[in-house]
Amino acid sequence: MEPSGQVLEHHTVLVRGGRVDSVVPSARLGNGDAVEVVNRAEHVLIPGLVNAHTHAAMSLLRNIAADLDLDNWLRKRIWPIEARLVDEQFVTDGTELAIAEMLLGGTTCFADMYYYPEVAARVAARSGIRACIGLPVLEQPTAWARDLDEYLARSLDLRDEYRADPLIETLFSIHSPASTSDTGLARLRTLADQLQASVMIHLLESPSERHRVQRKFAMGPLERLQTAGLVTDLLIAVHCVQASAAEIETLAAAGSSVVHCPASNLRLASGIAPVTEMRLAGINVALGSDGAASNDSLDLLGEARLAALLATGISGNAAALTPHAALEMATLAGARALGLAERTGSLLPGKWADIACLKLSGPQVVPHHDVATAVIHSAGRAAVTDTWVAGRPLVTGGRLTRIDAVELISRARRWHPTILATLDTIAGQ
Amino acid sequence: MEPSGQVLEHHTVLVRGGRVDSVVPSARLGNGDAVEVVNRAEHVLIPGLVNAHTHAAMSLLRNIAADLDLDNWLRKRIWPIEARLVDEQFVTDGTELAIAEMLLGGTTCFADMYYYPEVAARVAARSGIRACIGLPVLEQPTAWARDLDEYLARSLDLRDEYRADPLIETLFSIHSPASTSDTGLARLRTLADQLQASVMIHLLESPSERHRVQRKFAMGPLERLQTAGLVTDLLIAVHCVQASAAEIETLAAAGSSVVHCPASNLRLASGIAPVTEMRLAGINVALGSDGAASNDSLDLLGEARLAALLATGISGNAAALTPHAALEMATLAGARALGLAERTGSLLPGKWADIACLKLSGPQVVPHHDVATAVIHSAGRAAVTDTWVAGRPLVTGGRLTRIDAVELISRARRWHPTILATLDTIAGQ
Repeated sequence: MEPSGQVLEHHTVLVRGGRVDSVVPSARLGNGDAVEVVNRAEHVLIPGLVNAHTHAAMSLLRNIAADLDLDNWLRKRIWPIEARLVDEQFVTDGTELAIAEMLLGGTTCFADMYYYPEVAARVAARSGIRACIGLPVLEQPTAWARDLDEYLARSLDLRDEYRADPLIETLFSIHSPASTSDTGLARLRTLADQLQASVMIHLLESPSERHRVQRKFAMGPLERLQTAGLVTDLLIAVHCVQASAAEIETLAAAGSSVVHCPASNLRLASGIAPVTEMRLAGINVALGSDGAASNDSLDLLGEARLAALLATGISGNAAALTPHAALEMATLAGARALGLAERTGSLLPGKWADIACLKLSGPQVVPHHDVATAVIHSAGRAAVTDTWVAGRPLVTGGRLTRIDAVELISRARRWHPTILATLDTIAGQ
Repeated sequence: MEPSGQVLEHHTVLVRGGRVDSVVPSARLGNGDAVEVVNRAEHVLIPGLVNAHTHAAMSLLRNIAADLDLDNWLRKRIWPIEARLVDEQFVTDGTELAIAEMLLGGTTCFADMYYYPEVAARVAARSGIRACIGLPVLEQPTAWARDLDEYLARSLDLRDEYRADPLIETLFSIHSPASTSDTGLARLRTLADQLQASVMIHLLESPSERHRVQRKFAMGPLERLQTAGLVTDLLIAVHCVQASAAEIETLAAAGSSVVHCPASNLRLASGIAPVTEMRLAGINVALGSDGAASNDSLDLLGEARLAALLATGISGNAAALTPHAALEMATLAGARALGLAERTGSLLPGKWADIACLKLSGPQVVPHHDVATAVIHSAGRAAVTDTWVAGRPLVTGGRLTRIDAVELISRARRWHPTILATLDTIAGQ
């Protein structure tokens, strides 16, 4: 990734204290002071994938309502289910399940937006994955907080708790430009500026969002954020399916990042984000799976392939998003969006050793005449054999090392009857 | 699949003489006369997938020129490479590699279009997969035949050779409406009518195809086939990305089938076929991977997911192609397109036992609240554990039973330096 497009053959990544020390030709290695040597002869090492937008705990809600569009999916299924079921246990089990799936697919870092962020942070920290935990800036009362003051207070406490943690970051998050009051946006802006903290917002996801914001505030969704002073290089705008040329210019001029979630946008009938136009305008475009309830996978490599195919297919330009550019979106661009490019997103010496390893030897990938194309278009996440975060092996030989998969799966499955029954109740109302 | 949408839990498929005998509740099974019992407790059985359009031997050319559109990809890379490298060995190795990949991904039947069809037929027959081998109706001399007469004579011989084979079918194939003379089309039409044989043609794939045919023949590509009397229920029109409303009506009225190849169409910057419009018009729309050189996978389950996502995303209707409908495209619709619906495509008693089995127990798929959605959107081909064709286990526990994968992979890899060198030569010209 740095320098862009470079492929090194027969090289070794030396890791010291959890960080990339150097990347050297394997032939030049002595058998010096290495504590441990890991040989992966038929494999490729890539920077760990960065899932720049998900709602991890929603993995428990995968496969629900594959035939509803965004508004109906939220109002008729997701919000009613969440109101009945989401508690600390739900977030514990769902987040751990999501982390297991992500690690097995080569993802080493994810940005989360959900309820009970302290639970998600605790589960993530225990798992060893790198995470950016969204601090929810809400105004309506939930079990977590009564009002904006309490949301912000709890959010700041959580931010402080993980300040010294090398793996857990926090960022502020709001659901959408319509969901927060002027006061809420103003408070958020002040905090973000003071703390230089990122702000993640679902933006321009569907046509109905634009109409709703326009009707309520007499301005567009992006304009509303601009008015609040939130369109800066700290803004992480998720989706942007409906972004117009002018809105793309605005985001580019501000240095905001965009997170493209192609599978979720298609599944919810929202459309296809203008990724080529955004990249040409100079916007840093990262990739996200969104929650498993609208995907139904947390498969960043799959998202990278889909992003490349869509950009090519709808632009009429087969070079619109090359395999290497897609891989960069799935790694370094994600790190940049989350403000973590100094720490992860490439195998540059000094960064944490966040690495995914894929075996390129099955009938699905041989013969491979171009390694980036093989990784993006042929291998798929099933080829991932190892995942390291800060040098720690969290997946080895295709198996989780820290998470007890059998116990986790049985815990996740126990939610099935409850969720089905809740769906029945909701449908009956 | 028959009846549509039915999901049976805790059932057993009884197989006798390679055919589905019955599908019964497992609790009602005696321990009667079963010769062999296969237990798959955490799994789902689906009809074997039908890849209704591929160029199997092109698996050796995967990952080439991921940044070129259809015309440039063909003229600057594929045709020059094929002219230099395609021989019986290439077709043997490439076809076997493709079959290995397809079987591992749950595909039990494929329609092939390539050179040396007798080699592809032999390799397919040896592997145990079900195949429809395209008989190339060409006019320019190749190593296989000198002129149209010889192509047709050899094609008919091959057709006769496999007439009694329960696994190998044949169909006629031409590259595109522009590639065959009026005489060639007329001869093809007569043969297809006399033999009631299917005819597979790349149709309306890209805007340039339409312009080329229009310029050369003063009519559109579909019109040219209509004039030749080839637009019938025997026509299998591959791609149809550019089909207009009128062309969709024409194909629907004729009872022709369409094969949708979504990944290839996107990768080659051709666009997105109007699948929803075609299905609403009553056209039987099947799925194909196209060749691995424009995909770069032969992953029918992946194509089904992509088809569902695209149909939903571009129509704005989240119910445009439900997971169950996508699964039907990948199975029964493929069998119908190839004229094989009496033999395969569903688990109806009397059909051959062409079955794929997926394990639904990883962190990627639990908890699954809807089985069709889990199969299409969560599981992916990595979940396939078993593939049976006509009751024979060709994949068991994720491993090929008849094909020596290690030997095959090493044979496929030996093509790599030759292909790279050929690419260099071509680039230098």
